[in-house]
Amino acid sequence: VTSNFRTAELAAGRQGAPLSGFFESAILAHPTVTRVSQNIGGIGNATVVPKLDGSGPSYFAFDTGPGNVLIDAAVRLLTGSQSHYDKDGKMGARGKDRIDEDLLEQYLCNEPYFTTAPPKTTGRELFSDDVAAKLVDELRTRGWDDDAIVATLTRITAESIVRAYKTYVIPMVGHIDELYICGGGAFNPNIVDYVTTRLPHTKVEVLDRETIGISAEAKEAALFAVLGFLSICGRPVPIPHLAESQEQKILGAVTPGENYGQIMAQVDFSRVGESLGRIHVKSS
Amino acid sequence: VTSNFRTAELAAGRQGAPLSGFFESAILAHPTVTRVSQNIGGIGNATVVPKLDGSGPSYFAFDTGPGNVLIDAAVRLLTGSQSHYDKDGKMGARGKDRIDEDLLEQYLCNEPYFTTAPPKTTGRELFSDDVAAKLVDELRTRGWDDDAIVATLTRITAESIVRAYKTYVIPMVGHIDELYICGGGAFNPNIVDYVTTRLPHTKVEVLDRETIGISAEAKEAALFAVLGFLSICGRPVPIPHLAESQEQKILGAVTPGENYGQIMAQVDFSRVGESLGRIHVKSS
Repeated sequence: VTSNFRTAELAAGRQGAPLSGFFESAILAHPTVTRVSQNIGGIGNATVVPKLDGSGPSYFAFDTGPGNVLIDAAVRLLTGSQSHYDKDGKMGARGKDRIDEDLLEQYLCNEPYFTTAPPKTTGRELFSDDVAAKLVDELRTRGWDDDAIVATLTRITAESIVRAYKTYVIPMVGHIDELYICGGGAFNPNIVDYVTTRLPHTKVEVLDRETIGISAEAKEAALFAVLGFLSICGRPVPIPHLAESQEQKILGAVTPGENYGQIMAQVDFSRVGESLGRIHVKSS
Repeated sequence: VTSNFRTAELAAGRQGAPLSGFFESAILAHPTVTRVSQNIGGIGNATVVPKLDGSGPSYFAFDTGPGNVLIDAAVRLLTGSQSHYDKDGKMGARGKDRIDEDLLEQYLCNEPYFTTAPPKTTGRELFSDDVAAKLVDELRTRGWDDDAIVATLTRITAESIVRAYKTYVIPMVGHIDELYICGGGAFNPNIVDYVTTRLPHTKVEVLDRETIGISAEAKEAALFAVLGFLSICGRPVPIPHLAESQEQKILGAVTPGENYGQIMAQVDFSRVGESLGRIHVKSS
């Protein structure tokens, strides 16, 4: 078993999350196309993979802010936990012409996370069920119905992603040619459609086998298989651009099991500590 | 770095503590002498190492009950934290003719841990500052002064060790020839002298370089060095008699550092999983 990959990142002075950047960049790297991979889980995180022509920085990754956390919490609150998320974006779609733009601006301007430049990482401590409950209360006080409330929280989420690109990504990489969305939020058309409309010159797709050669479900599993492989081999994970430090570390810990001998006998220990450089995964 | 040795013990259905038994037995094993090593830290734990003539069981280890925890907590309470332990047993010595034998019997008979047979392990959840505070209160209510209170808690501790031997060790191994005491409690003459008096046919010594060839301070360090070595080599730690299961496990996890390549290149991975059998450490 290999585990505990973030500890060494923290020891090197980095934030330890998202860890997936190097793997996303290995899948997405392209000679002439600048790509962004946007995961929308509870939290949203982006991996930016500039084209490989050498004109831009290497990849970097950061959390954009809320993923589905605010929407899910609102739906649970408004339906008395009958629903745990806005399935197919139906509530949000019904409310989409009654979005409280004023509250949206207020929230996106006043939450300091959005105005902090990468490297940055966040979690449920900033984007929590409590924050969702406060936003729901405020929107109710303003007279909005349930669908309008869900639509507004969906728009806040989608707009926070778009603004992260416009503020921190596009000024650095010039233009995003292709955007691949994965995670639960990829199944919410209100998010995907809005992001597509706001980025008219970017090809927006859901990340899956058809578009990028690896299914979204398999991506995390493959990432951790590679992390485990690097740990056993004692090879450091490549460090992204915009990291807090460039100190290389071997990540993870190896807990010997019954197959420890078989596995370790295959490792070339003379290459321990050797940098991988930029790695490429042939995803097909 | 190697760490986290207890997890695999728990996974094998054992209690994961004390882990030191196999190492104590390696230091203490003798062809014709049955030995017990008694550590008196916060908790007390015994490793029983029967003579190697094949007539008895292999070594076993268990927690006897409180070590210094009750005495230390009482001293802190009674001195308003001016003292944190009964240095050289001075308070206990002044009170030794005023021990509340009635409370001692009551406590040793009513705390179920003492009447549970090994394998068993305990900690601050049973022998806590709170328990000490209750005993101090009860003894104060009964009119005892501070010295008598510390003497009674010291006697409870020493008597719990002696009774553990008489109830669980001597019936199994026949006779304890030699007893080696270590830990902070080895410096409390009221404990060592009382145990010596109660075991007149046992040679009682403090464990150190002069008596057994390794200093008490170095023992834990050497134990964990050996545990780390076994983890890296993928060799299971020998399982004691009276263990909850005999399933062998490799203990610990290996976190690769800068010297990972150098170290791993020296391991013979063809021997992973091979039992050490009974190991002997030549402590001189």
